[in-house]
Amino acid sequence: MNSAALTIGFVMLHTSPLDIPGTKDAGGMNVVVQAQAEALARAGHDVRIYTRRSDAAVPKRVEVQPGLAVIHLDAGPARLLAKGEHEAVMDEFGHLLDAELELDPVDLLHAEHWFSGIAALSVARGRKIPLVQSYHSIAAEPDSPLTDGERPESPGRLAGEKLLASEADLIIAVSEAERQTVIDRLGGDPDQIRVVPLGVDTELFYPCVTTVCAEQRDWLKRGGRPEVIVVGRLHPLKGFDLIIEAIALMPAETRPVLRLVGAPPPDGDEYAQGLHEAVARHGMLSTTAFDGALRRSELAERIRAATIMVVPSHSETFGLVALEAAASGVPVIARATGGLREAVIDGTTGVLVTGDDPQVWATEVANLLGDAERLERMGAAAREHAVNSSWIASGERLVEAYSLACAGRTA
Amino acid sequence: MNSAALTIGFVMLHTSPLDIPGTKDAGGMNVVVQAQAEALARAGHDVRIYTRRSDAAVPKRVEVQPGLAVIHLDAGPARLLAKGEHEAVMDEFGHLLDAELELDPVDLLHAEHWFSGIAALSVARGRKIPLVQSYHSIAAEPDSPLTDGERPESPGRLAGEKLLASEADLIIAVSEAERQTVIDRLGGDPDQIRVVPLGVDTELFYPCVTTVCAEQRDWLKRGGRPEVIVVGRLHPLKGFDLIIEAIALMPAETRPVLRLVGAPPPDGDEYAQGLHEAVARHGMLSTTAFDGALRRSELAERIRAATIMVVPSHSETFGLVALEAAASGVPVIARATGGLREAVIDGTTGVLVTGDDPQVWATEVANLLGDAERLERMGAAAREHAVNSSWIASGERLVEAYSLACAGRTA
Repeated sequence: MNSAALTIGFVMLHTSPLDIPGTKDAGGMNVVVQAQAEALARAGHDVRIYTRRSDAAVPKRVEVQPGLAVIHLDAGPARLLAKGEHEAVMDEFGHLLDAELELDPVDLLHAEHWFSGIAALSVARGRKIPLVQSYHSIAAEPDSPLTDGERPESPGRLAGEKLLASEADLIIAVSEAERQTVIDRLGGDPDQIRVVPLGVDTELFYPCVTTVCAEQRDWLKRGGRPEVIVVGRLHPLKGFDLIIEAIALMPAETRPVLRLVGAPPPDGDEYAQGLHEAVARHGMLSTTAFDGALRRSELAERIRAATIMVVPSHSETFGLVALEAAASGVPVIARATGGLREAVIDGTTGVLVTGDDPQVWATEVANLLGDAERLERMGAAAREHAVNSSWIASGERLVEAYSLACAGRTA
Repeated sequence: MNSAALTIGFVMLHTSPLDIPGTKDAGGMNVVVQAQAEALARAGHDVRIYTRRSDAAVPKRVEVQPGLAVIHLDAGPARLLAKGEHEAVMDEFGHLLDAELELDPVDLLHAEHWFSGIAALSVARGRKIPLVQSYHSIAAEPDSPLTDGERPESPGRLAGEKLLASEADLIIAVSEAERQTVIDRLGGDPDQIRVVPLGVDTELFYPCVTTVCAEQRDWLKRGGRPEVIVVGRLHPLKGFDLIIEAIALMPAETRPVLRLVGAPPPDGDEYAQGLHEAVARHGMLSTTAFDGALRRSELAERIRAATIMVVPSHSETFGLVALEAAASGVPVIARATGGLREAVIDGTTGVLVTGDDPQVWATEVANLLGDAERLERMGAAAREHAVNSSWIASGERLVEAYSLACAGRTA
């Protein structure tokens, strides 16, 4: 422990950092919280992550590494909840959290997603400790059109997010894009928002040097198909349907292998089912893989074996997978939206694409796959871009922010 | 080159050893021929593999390693052929092969599958060199019922196989089961049949020691789902439908992840489409992966990360994947048929199952997954079983057989 060591309570009500991203409700947020918590624990801070128990088989307290524990609170039934069901357990979760902190106090609470923020707000107030808030994603404007398959937001969400923007001691944004959204949409005070960019684990995500990759390159040289990887929960927001339609427009003999990594979210697999049907309808079963959810090291292996990554998501607050691809030396074709505009340097580490025309996406994919020199140049630039973003640096900036929040409280 | 070095011509008309197994028409045979050819080349023999060009982009001659080349002959159109179409190009292939050998002779021809044997027979006769025949699979009896989805055999097949059983200088069987089939079904002379068991690459297939595997074990300890892997072309003969129905019978919360590795064969993807539909119908999209065809090193990684392998194939002459699982320390639940009865030692390295009742398969899977001690014991026994089978040993036995065939010719 260093002299300024903090005891930090992450609050992550609706998904456990122990879940595999791409399964259940777990996604980029799980990766981020676990990585930041690990970096903080390694720096000598004492970190607990409070989450709701969604599985009766998991022990109440799991020690992940020295200084980092995950604590499961029995709020609501011990099963996965669909997203709309979480609001009903926020109160109970808050009471259980308060009881935990009574026995084992923390210096501050850092809430992830608005559910957690609302559950933690009164606890932090009652205990006179700062509440730091991360949103991860922010509700769309009430009058904005829904993306195909997207559920309308619960009416509580925008109100809850606005409340947190005014009541939390500090807001952490992961990108300039998110900071601007907090100001524009939630009326956040610019002085209360700090941008702490995410990191990437460059020891896990590194360019192709393994046997698998050598075999892949060798295979490509012998006329094999290049590989396009898309990573995320199988949810309409991620735009998997768009990339399937785009690849279908390419002549069958020039189509790349399309690798879709991720599982359906707990609130339904109609979208996933539609993807399977679309692949069959376009005669792409023999060149498409549905990998399901992968553990992190498996994901890293598959990203570095891919030729390019495509991120067709309709919105991404940060777009961590794009940074993971960059660290793997893999160029990214991403939608020009939100944090992806910062994660991908257009024309240098990848390509940013606007709109939903599959032909436009198909052309970008075909152009990049067909230009070996550009692929290599972009891959190298991407890796260089990524190695400057470490989780240790991200953790250090977080601690600076925490200190500000604690100082604000004391003052 | 050692003093007894041979120049060996493998004939593999309908599928290239350069194709990824589990894609196109490539399967276990491609693995076997490539591995034996590599072992023979490493032992100082000069090996060529003659195959039909099915892709205009592939060069005519590909040097795979010193002493091993693949030669693509332009018989028929440069595209994939469905299985029934190959008989029409056998003659043309034979003529082109003969022209090649005129320029660059070999000491013997080793034909793989009956197409190749028929194409090579008159070439070998004309050049007075021995013809060694491997079947890999043998036509079912004309009156035997077809498995669901299986096409009736072409009328030429059984006749062709019988002709080869009487005319080839030597028949190579990969298992006692195959030897018996050649005798019973094709009227083969027992003295003309040698059993040369296949090998397994124990440097490629080894038990779980990587980060991925450590993460997998850690994940299981934390209540994650175990993983069942099934490997093969997505063809009814492989019985993928049976394992999907079996897993569907297990309670949803105890279902393992089901990983299906392989692509549809070129003669149709109706079966694959049915598998996708069955997985969706049973609500298993979130716990099922369709990996597509994998390169060998990727396959090895995924096998060793699995908890068990299931081989529900309706018939397997050898069942190489079962040996690959064994080498990876992964127990196998397989159908008690053909070579699988030799590849799996029932009760020691895995479990043999009879019949098509999904409940029976489900019970065996659940019992084995639920018994950590038995899993570990069987995994260790499987690895021990596999390390005694190397491709070098397999190659040496092949050379003994070739010498017999050559001596028979000279005598």
